[in-house]
Amino acid sequence: MSRVRVSIVGGSGYTGGELIRLLLFHPMVEISQVASGSQAGHFVHSAHPNLRKISTLRFCHPDDLTACDVLFLCLPHGVSSGEIERYRGLAPRVIDLSGDFRLRSPELYQRWYGHQHPASDLLPKAVYGLPELHRGELTEATLVSGTGCMATTSILGLAPLYRAGVVNQALPLVVEAKVGSSAAGAKAGPSSHHPDRSGAVRSFEPTGHRHSAELIQELGQLDGGADLKQIVAFSATAVELVRGILVTAHVFLNEDLEEKAIWRIFREAYQREPFMRLVKERNGVYRYPEPKILAGSNYCDVGFEVDVEQRRVVVMAALDNLMKGAAGNGVQALNCMLGWDETLGLTFPGLHPV
Amino acid sequence: MSRVRVSIVGGSGYTGGELIRLLLFHPMVEISQVASGSQAGHFVHSAHPNLRKISTLRFCHPDDLTACDVLFLCLPHGVSSGEIERYRGLAPRVIDLSGDFRLRSPELYQRWYGHQHPASDLLPKAVYGLPELHRGELTEATLVSGTGCMATTSILGLAPLYRAGVVNQALPLVVEAKVGSSAAGAKAGPSSHHPDRSGAVRSFEPTGHRHSAELIQELGQLDGGADLKQIVAFSATAVELVRGILVTAHVFLNEDLEEKAIWRIFREAYQREPFMRLVKERNGVYRYPEPKILAGSNYCDVGFEVDVEQRRVVVMAALDNLMKGAAGNGVQALNCMLGWDETLGLTFPGLHPV
Amino acid sequence: MSRVRVSIVGGSGYTGGELIRLLLFHPMVEISQVASGSQAGHFVHSAHPNLRKISTLRFCHPDDLTACDVLFLCLPHGVSSGEIERYRGLAPRVIDLSGDFRLRSPELYQRWYGHQHPASDLLPKAVYGLPELHRGELTEATLVSGTGCMATTSILGLAPLYRAGVVNQALPLVVEAKVGSSAAGAKAGPSSHHPDRSGAVRSFEPTGHRHSAELIQELGQLDGGADLKQIVAFSATAVELVRGILVTAHVFLNEDLEEKAIWRIFREAYQREPFMRLVKERNGVYRYPEPKILAGSNYCDVGFEVDVEQRRVVVMAALDNLMKGAAGNGVQALNCMLGWDETLGLTFPGLHPV
Amino acid sequence: MSRVRVSIVGGSGYTGGELIRLLLFHPMVEISQVASGSQAGHFVHSAHPNLRKISTLRFCHPDDLTACDVLFLCLPHGVSSGEIERYRGLAPRVIDLSGDFRLRSPELYQRWYGHQHPASDLLPKAVYGLPELHRGELTEATLVSGTGCMATTSILGLAPLYRAGVVNQALPLVVEAKVGSSAAGAKAGPSSHHPDRSGAVRSFEPTGHRHSAELIQELGQLDGGADLKQIVAFSATAVELVRGILVTAHVFLNEDLEEKAIWRIFREAYQREPFMRLVKERNGVYRYPEPKILAGSNYCDVGFEVDVEQRRVVVMAALDNLMKGAAGNGVQALNCMLGWDETLGLTFPGLHPV
Repeated sequence: MSRVRVSIVGGSGYTGGELIRLLLFHPMVEISQVASGSQAGHFVHSAHPNLRKISTLRFCHPDDLTACDVLFLCLPHGVSSGEIERYRGLAPRVIDLSGDFRLRSPELYQRWYGHQHPASDLLPKAVYGLPELHRGELTEATLVSGTGCMATTSILGLAPLYRAGVVNQALPLVVEAKVGSSAAGAKAGPSSHHPDRSGAVRSFEPTGHRHSAELIQELGQLDGGADLKQIVAFSATAVELVRGILVTAHVFLNEDLEEKAIWRIFREAYQREPFMRLVKERNGVYRYPEPKILAGSNYCDVGFEVDVEQRRVVVMAALDNLMKGAAGNGVQALNCMLGWDETLGLTFPGLHPV
Repeated sequence: MSRVRVSIVGGSGYTGGELIRLLLFHPMVEISQVASGSQAGHFVHSAHPNLRKISTLRFCHPDDLTACDVLFLCLPHGVSSGEIERYRGLAPRVIDLSGDFRLRSPELYQRWYGHQHPASDLLPKAVYGLPELHRGELTEATLVSGTGCMATTSILGLAPLYRAGVVNQALPLVVEAKVGSSAAGAKAGPSSHHPDRSGAVRSFEPTGHRHSAELIQELGQLDGGADLKQIVAFSATAVELVRGILVTAHVFLNEDLEEKAIWRIFREAYQREPFMRLVKERNGVYRYPEPKILAGSNYCDVGFEVDVEQRRVVVMAALDNLMKGAAGNGVQALNCMLGWDETLGLTFPGLHPV
Repeated sequence: MSRVRVSIVGGSGYTGGELIRLLLFHPMVEISQVASGSQAGHFVHSAHPNLRKISTLRFCHPDDLTACDVLFLCLPHGVSSGEIERYRGLAPRVIDLSGDFRLRSPELYQRWYGHQHPASDLLPKAVYGLPELHRGELTEATLVSGTGCMATTSILGLAPLYRAGVVNQALPLVVEAKVGSSAAGAKAGPSSHHPDRSGAVRSFEPTGHRHSAELIQELGQLDGGADLKQIVAFSATAVELVRGILVTAHVFLNEDLEEKAIWRIFREAYQREPFMRLVKERNGVYRYPEPKILAGSNYCDVGFEVDVEQRRVVVMAALDNLMKGAAGNGVQALNCMLGWDETLGLTFPGLHPV
Repeated sequence: MSRVRVSIVGGSGYTGGELIRLLLFHPMVEISQVASGSQAGHFVHSAHPNLRKISTLRFCHPDDLTACDVLFLCLPHGVSSGEIERYRGLAPRVIDLSGDFRLRSPELYQRWYGHQHPASDLLPKAVYGLPELHRGELTEATLVSGTGCMATTSILGLAPLYRAGVVNQALPLVVEAKVGSSAAGAKAGPSSHHPDRSGAVRSFEPTGHRHSAELIQELGQLDGGADLKQIVAFSATAVELVRGILVTAHVFLNEDLEEKAIWRIFREAYQREPFMRLVKERNGVYRYPEPKILAGSNYCDVGFEVDVEQRRVVVMAALDNLMKGAAGNGVQALNCMLGWDETLGLTFPGLHPV
């Protein structure tokens, strides 16, 4: 059987590089082209040194892209939406890993991104590419959106509670994300300068972070279409780490639930999910989710603790922002779209210690 | 004028070492004795290598302590309260940096520490040694308690809002502390093993952390004696850092307040405080509090951001857990107790870059 | 075809864990048993949290080991040699990853390990398990030794020059190894305590390191049996890193050789080696070997620079101490022993960024 | 007594910032002006956030500099030498912390810096500003040069042996420096981008590093004017650390010397030096020099180990590249020049843990 031909636009960034790495070892795929405006003509391994001796592929210029079966877009936010028709002309299936098509509502987009969407008619048709929530829609989709890395972590951690209808919508949902430096991309600048970034515990966007909009959209939808605009309180802090996110979410319940009941909700939600693991142990060093052992893997680990008196659950969720938070999740979505085993090309378990 | 004679019990730990370092350079103090059960007879610099060539002091055995003017206790939690009368017999002023005398109420102590306090009659007499809140009481105090490092950060970040009476007590106060590895002390063990601890973003005690009790006590008192038991939601996450804490707190207001009004509340609270700095800038890398540049300094930096629609303030506060969160704050309290300039021995500004 | 049954003794340490991870995904192997004295009865993933949801294997007790096809020993140094006959009774092929069988000469062993070898008659029969040097011997071997992680890096970096006979044996060979914390094993202690180990650049064994003996043995053998005892100067420095080694070696030549000639020597030595990469670029950030992008991969990257006037070559070599420096190299040796493609189970390319 | 008026040119970089911090707390100095081309008009604390609330000083434009008593130049390499006459016109004493005036010989400069020196007649008059080697000359000097951070570490580590005349000049001196990211300066770029620089163990300039020239000049001079050009082998490796250098040097002796004799050489050389400490202990974690506990301090710690059979000494030396390696050493030189106690303004002992 011939392999599916996949091309990548924006292949010199971190998400692009991770996607190349995954697709080079994917048993059903062949990489057709990798485009990069700045790196055209250079070897792919000149931007991604881990691929030395593994691939002799070179970047092509974006203008030289030809037709393929699936096209991944790994462009900076705000770029793909302006050229989306051209890209959709190149492939019957487009997966855009930027933020451009994550929101279904043009109004929500305008509110959080600060400008009108240039292809707003496409927004309702795009699928939010999180297989755990939208597996069914993915099989028919022609335009799939990647998901925000911190949004993905938060949504996967909280979805079971929202879907179970046990969340008190009169009380705030407070989500604090801790995130590594690779989430800010491959471009150097003052905020990524090592002497300043090393050892940082740096609040950025304590209010108003765009990933809030994805929580409002996806968790609200799970909870019967509730409007969570007034209660989602999301803040993000950069920590010393290259890859990885840990989300700590405080959520309040609308009824008395003990630990056992919360266990049941999470177990039922995730026991058949190939990339979701419940991590909650009585002792040991790794008794809650820990992002560092997820580097390179597509797992999202979720744990929790309950404060029964306050009717409060603290959910911890962790993943690798370039894997389950970007490229790995994109490959998982691709596997869904093409009806393949969802784990194809995604079996690396992560390292320990690391 | 002769110097005040200060002794230290428990001098081989991190807080003890930091205290020795500070007092060696304090212009009004002479270190009388430093006791350590395990290190008796050894040079102080064998436990604290930064003090090589600076001091030839040796640890004495705790049984060999003699009378002095001020006695600092740097013992593990639960130890000093059992021997407090002996220590109070050695010096007219005792400053206990452990958790044993932080809470005024024996009931609150029992609830959070899980056992009855062995000297509960002393609890109401001890002073919570945070000069910014209890400066007046410190001048008369004979027993002063150190303050929990994460509690200190949280309380200093939030005190202005609670004192101003603008906090909505029907909504939760969610506080997420990020903390370095030195806060867990000098004793090695599996959770501090470098291959596992390095790069960690590790939730520990997502519910039920004892520092919660200090928030309940101190913030409640500032807010007219309110009972905050049901609303304080405190979680803590260990991050890759040796020294330092960043607290991110989401607090809800009982009225519409714009950024300017919040600015005024913080400015009035802290403009005359020598160790409180407001850090909130429009741009630059260090536009919010950042713990790493506080290593070795006694500052607590506080910043905030407002979500007007949600009537929510996100407060960020940072400090060095061994300085303003422990030994440095202890020296500041000592300065208060003896009527000295509060900044004596505490002028080191911190390093940049670091 | 039925899979080869491989068992592991000492499976709860870092090398054991890495070996389990590799063998779980190896297409020709089935893990028969994993023994651990301290963890018997527990799930393998309780010691190796990256294996959660991947394997439900449990540790058995070492006394309960049964016969298998290949037995890996991952015991602390000095343990396996005392029981080697029992282990050799369990399997026709034994691969000992400890230091016990690395040296061929009982005298050399005694000199560097400070005591007589308990099974010294076996030393001449064991094979130093570095496929790049001893591929031929591995196919017949019944007892194979793992190789010291820093020795492996140094030997692979220098072997081409020694084999080419261009090294001046009257001048010292100075090798400085920089190494991450996982090389010191899974057991916590004062030297691995995070506040002390974090950010360390810590010399340990600046003289007298046992890995020197492996350099003396292997490089001397490559250079016509030269005795390098008087010229090998090896020092090791622990740096802030969990996995990885970078060796910087200064070696002096016995003739004038320009860069091009050195290139040729390295290229001819390694162009057909599946896990050796030459890394020497004119520009870019990764123009020399860099251990961090090798984490989890089995590559050893080698680069160099020449000082023609001094007839000096500086060789840089990097690898992951748990992979090409231990478990990965062990699997590669296994592949050799059984006549399989050497890369089976070892295709993970490493991550970037990381 | 009125304070000495000191100005700084190039005050927005790391060395400039460190100098400002030190001089703000120096008891005999008042900062007159701090010039910065790029930051003129801004508060000094906008570039150096550790100085918030400590100084309200603003950067002036370099063109607006007025006369002062001492002028520090903290400009990039190659800049000050072109304008040195103007700067010398502003102050009777100039201390240039760049590389422009480190070498006494115009030929040596041209060889290592690749171009002719624009003010080569000044080279022989400038003093290499290392008080431990040139204390006497400093009191008369009008132009003093700062010293390369890695060169300083190496020279201070090796000077006692060279001065004692025990080094074999027919064998190579191999020096491997491990260095933190702040040594590369405050300017962001691809090589300092956190995802790439974090956890790096990165060889840069394995041959041909300019600091070699300082070793050749200073160590040769100590050893009776020997020409060390053919034997100095210096390599540098960037490691995960912001501040700090550890040098590991392998040096060969011209006679049999036991450890005790080496001890005596080092002790005699450094026992009266205020900033030199010998660190060599039998046990403990910090038994050799460790740069991290030197952050912010002006100490240079030196230790060693002897391989008697090889007549080899391994010297380890550590310091903070911005302190004893740059600004701190500059202040120490200033103290010498003005006949003050050398430790003025330099008493901070460093932190532990950190």
